[in-house]
Formats: sequence, structure tokens, C-alpha cells
Amino acid sequence: MNKIRLGIAGCGIATRKLHLPALRKLGNIFEVAALYNRTERRSQELAGQMKPSPRVFNNYVDMLESGEIDAVDISLPPGLNNEFISQALDAGIHVICEKPISNSTAEGKKVVELAERSDRVVYIAENFRHVSKFTEASRLIESGKIGSPAFFQWQSWVRMSRDNEYVNTNWRKHPDHIGGYLSDGGVHHIAAIRLLAGDIAKVTAFSKTVSDYLGAEDTLACVMQTKNGSLVSYNVSYALYKCGMSATIIGSDGCMHIADSRITLDSHGKKDILDIDQDDSYEREFVDFHRTVCGERNILGSPLSALHDLAVIEAAVISSNTDRRVFVDSLL
Amino acid sequence: MNKIRLGIAGCGIATRKLHLPALRKLGNIFEVAALYNRTERRSQELAGQMKPSPRVFNNYVDMLESGEIDAVDISLPPGLNNEFISQALDAGIHVICEKPISNSTAEGKKVVELAERSDRVVYIAENFRHVSKFTEASRLIESGKIGSPAFFQWQSWVRMSRDNEYVNTNWRKHPDHIGGYLSDGGVHHIAAIRLLAGDIAKVTAFSKTVSDYLGAEDTLACVMQTKNGSLVSYNVSYALYKCGMSATIIGSDGCMHIADSRITLDSHGKKDILDIDQDDSYEREFVDFHRTVCGERNILGSPLSALHDLAVIEAAVISSNTDRRVFVDSLL
Repeated sequence: MNKIRLGIAGCGIATRKLHLPALRKLGNIFEVAALYNRTERRSQELAGQMKPSPRVFNNYVDMLESGEIDAVDISLPPGLNNEFISQALDAGIHVICEKPISNSTAEGKKVVELAERSDRVVYIAENFRHVSKFTEASRLIESGKIGSPAFFQWQSWVRMSRDNEYVNTNWRKHPDHIGGYLSDGGVHHIAAIRLLAGDIAKVTAFSKTVSDYLGAEDTLACVMQTKNGSLVSYNVSYALYKCGMSATIIGSDGCMHIADSRITLDSHGKKDILDIDQDDSYEREFVDFHRTVCGERNILGSPLSALHDLAVIEAAVISSNTDRRVFVDSLL
Repeated sequence: MNKIRLGIAGCGIATRKLHLPALRKLGNIFEVAALYNRTERRSQELAGQMKPSPRVFNNYVDMLESGEIDAVDISLPPGLNNEFISQALDAGIHVICEKPISNSTAEGKKVVELAERSDRVVYIAENFRHVSKFTEASRLIESGKIGSPAFFQWQSWVRMSRDNEYVNTNWRKHPDHIGGYLSDGGVHHIAAIRLLAGDIAKVTAFSKTVSDYLGAEDTLACVMQTKNGSLVSYNVSYALYKCGMSATIIGSDGCMHIADSRITLDSHGKKDILDIDQDDSYEREFVDFHRTVCGERNILGSPLSALHDLAVIEAAVISSNTDRRVFVDSLL
């Protein structure tokens, strides 16, 4: 398949601001052929702004069965993913679906099962697995630049202000997805952490609610043990003062700091600064989806991997609520 | 009392490299009148290098009862503190004793009880409570510079190499003190964290043994809840690559980063860099001890405060060994 005819389900912020700008650059491999949105006014409005203008469907299944699309891009509140993915697969349509995989690990497992039973692709779009600085950092670690890596520290101070447009989406104001922002933003961070540190075995955490408008706990202090015995510290707040996102990785013979688009490397006493091109991780994500539809193995969009990301956050939320540490595999 | 006649018990590294250089600057308020060391050769050697040369005792109690000293500076393996402090108080001698207060919280409680029963001063020397950058940071937080502080993140990557002279002291090679370096170095960090964040309520942690020569676990990933509900992340390794010690404090309206002798402040969007004079924290510690002997309240050298520092580390060690979270007060 050279060009994938894509239907889009959901015309919210992710579609408009993240996916469509990437797809516009990928006219050689994608054609946005159709739009569906629960409120048709929004899909009509969006279609009117696009060239060529995709066909608007007011019924999701009609879009799937129209014969006009090969794949669907689902960008909906995560509680709807399961049903929408299931219907797409029933219609023989490939799926790319915005993270998180679902509202909870239990629901996410059903998505994994659907994907395993189908011969169509189910690709969970987690752009952090495509961010160059993380893939480059992972490569540097694997090449032994910091010796044996043992400690991964991640901090995200990403305040979501009261007037932020994401904050004002209804499903985020009244979250059904576990931990609210802790999972909505958190699966991104865990995806990158797992890329760098490997799979997580155990989690223990404290959480805190700072804001009165984010719908759930908004601040988390968490430590984890990876399956290979490394330690991970993961700190995040969506409510406190905004002061950036960074990661520090300490090994036996060096350390590495990742912030903005820069990797600062101290390897065996030699210091290096690597400025990383900030390419569009959404564009890379869609290119990778195209590859998997063409028959390549689905690694970076694997539902099982997305499920693991969510399970780590769910483990942290359970840990902070029940005052005990949680084995991630016990949720899977 | 204008000038305190000081006897020193223990002529190890702390005495030679940390205490005597400070005392040399404080000739107006201290006179090092006597030395005691289990191996007399070392006290003789040290006395020979000092001007004026203090009297050397080969028996600790003889030094205490000589009538030639008003106070004793105890710098011994922490398992000996209890007995040495008790004997000093029995002889009516004031005490300044190097941290940690003891090998364990249970033993440290006895030191607190000894101090409470005595009219002499028992001052636990914790120099981190006298480090200007931390006292200045604490002042900035209290003045509201970062709004309401809510998250304290501390990381210490302070590799102790195989040939380090501390590493080669016998009592550190075969530690009786809880967690080995985790408490030996850790009480310093917790003292500073408590200065900034307040008292710790709950602790949960994972530890790891990286080196084969540090005698115990050497790497810790820990999160805590303070009594006023703030979150603390405390990460430390004595074995991994050396890449410094720093703290980041995030509040509702600003954040602060403390590294080397610099405080980087982002307060309500306004950035400031404060370079802090690196004065001698050991000198300030002895000045403060002198004040308490002269009748001022013992705050920064309070045995109870030193006990709290140690209890937090013990809670972290217990947490990582028993896979549960630990209330600090349950150890006190």
C-alpha cells in the first residue's frame, strides 16, 4: 500500500494541533479521506478548512464501512478507545489510536486482546517513543557512554494553567481515566523512561492534590525498580510552577542530562554537549504506522507497550492511595 | 565563659580535616587543651603538629576528670557516642559530638535521654545545618519567593572511590551504623532537607548495592511525605559516577535550584542568580556550640533533631528491605 486513506474519528485538540500538521507533511503516504465527530458541526468546520476537503460522516460505522478508508485515526476520550477500535477491526480497518490506550489497565488489556485477535494493525500513538532526544539518549546508553546505567531520574514540572485549552475539555475536567493528568501526561513520561531504563517491576509513590481545577491528584513523587534492578525516580506536577522537564541518567562511568533539545554528557570525565534536531515526533509516528500497515513489525506503537506505560501510572496511583508498593505485572 | 577549653576524643579524619581547621580560626573562643585517641601514637603525632601543643591523655575518663577541659569534642565511630557522651556528662563536661548521633535510632534515643537528664550541653555537630546556601534558601522560601513550597527534590551523586581515605577507615568498611554510607552521608542530606521542607512523616524507598567495597547498600531512591503534606524526592548514590549534589524546590509561584554555591531562583517569572559565600560551616557550628554553652538554646545542634535525621534514613533502609512504607515517628 503506497498511500493510506485515513479516516479521523474525533476533531479535538490532538487531531487539529498534533496529527493534522504532521499528516499535512506526509501527503505522499497519507490521504485524509474522511472525518467523523460526535458533534457534526465541528467535523464540518474542520473539513471546510482542509484541502482537499475530506468527506464528513455523522456516523462512525458508516465511515468505517464506506470503502473510502483503509485506516482510522482515533483521537477521542480514552474511555471510548475500546469500542471504537473494536468496530474498526470488525470492519477490517487498520487503527492508529492516540494514547493512553484506555482509561485503566483492565480496559487496556481488552484493546491488547482485540489487537491480538485481528490481522489488522492496532497502533497506539505515543509520540514520546519517537522524540529524537530520547531515542538518541537510549542509543548513547546502549553504546556504553555512561558505563552500566543504574539510576534514572525524571522530573516534569508542566503546569496546566486554568485557561489551558486541554484543561477545559470536558473529559479532562471530570476524568474517568485513572489519576486524571497523572495518566494523561504520565504515559508519555513512562514511555520515555521505559525506552531509557527498560521495563518497570515495582512502584511506590506519594501523590498530592495542589490545584482545585484539574479533576484529580496533580502531583506525584514516585520511585520504581526496573526488572533489571535499576532505580527510577519519577517526579511530576501539573499544578505547581512550570519549570520544565528533564531527565538525568547516572551510570558507573558517566552521567547524562536531557533537557529541552540538548543532551549533556559526562562520559569517563569527558564532557560533551549534543544539540538534537527537534523533528516532529508526530510525523515520525505516522511514518512508523505506515510501515506497520505495510507489514513491518509494530514495536513503537505496540498496544502491549502502551498498556505497560499505563500500568506503571496505575501502580503509582494505587500505591499512593493504598500506602503500599505495587508490582506492575500484578495489573497486567 | 569566654574561652572554652576543649578536649578532643578521636584523632581521625573529621578531627584533623574538618574540626581543627575551624578551631584554628576560633582561638578567641576555643582552646584545644587536650587530646585523646585509642591509639596514643596518633594523638601524640597530632599534638606534636599543633601550637600550642595540647596535653595528650591515654585514658578518656582521665581527660574528662583532669579539670583541664570544659567541653569535649567527640569524633569517633558513631557506635561509641552513647558511652563517650554519658561519661562526659557524668564528669560535668559539655559535649559536641560529630554526626550521626548514633548507629541506630534506638541507640540515638538514649543519647537524647542522656542530654535531657543533664544540665550540660550535648550538641550534635551537623554542619549541613550551618551551610549558608541552605540557610539562605530556607530564608527565601519562608519569605514567599516561590509561593507555597510543595515539592523538594534532592540528589547527591557523591561517589566514594576505592582509594578515598574515609572509605578506608575500618568502621566504615564494616559498618555497624544502619545502612553504612546511607546514614553516614545521608543524615547530612536529611538535615538540609528538613531545614528546607520541615519534618518528615512517611518514607518509602528502594535501595541498591552497586559497589563491592562500601560495606552495605550504596544507592537509594526514596520519596517522602512531610508532616505538612509536601512531597520530597531523595536520590543518592555513593557508588555511581560522581556528578554533584543539588536540590530543586518547586512551589506554587516559583522554583529554586541549589547547586555548588549558587541559588538559581525563578520567582513569579523573574529569574535571579544568587552566589552564596562559601563560609566554613564547621566554624559556624563551633561558634553555635559556644553560644549554647554560654546559655543560648540549642537548636541547630539539638540531639532530637539529629535523631530525626537518622530516623528518616533508618525508615528508608527499613522500607527498602521490607517492601513497605515506614512512619518516621514509629521509630522515635
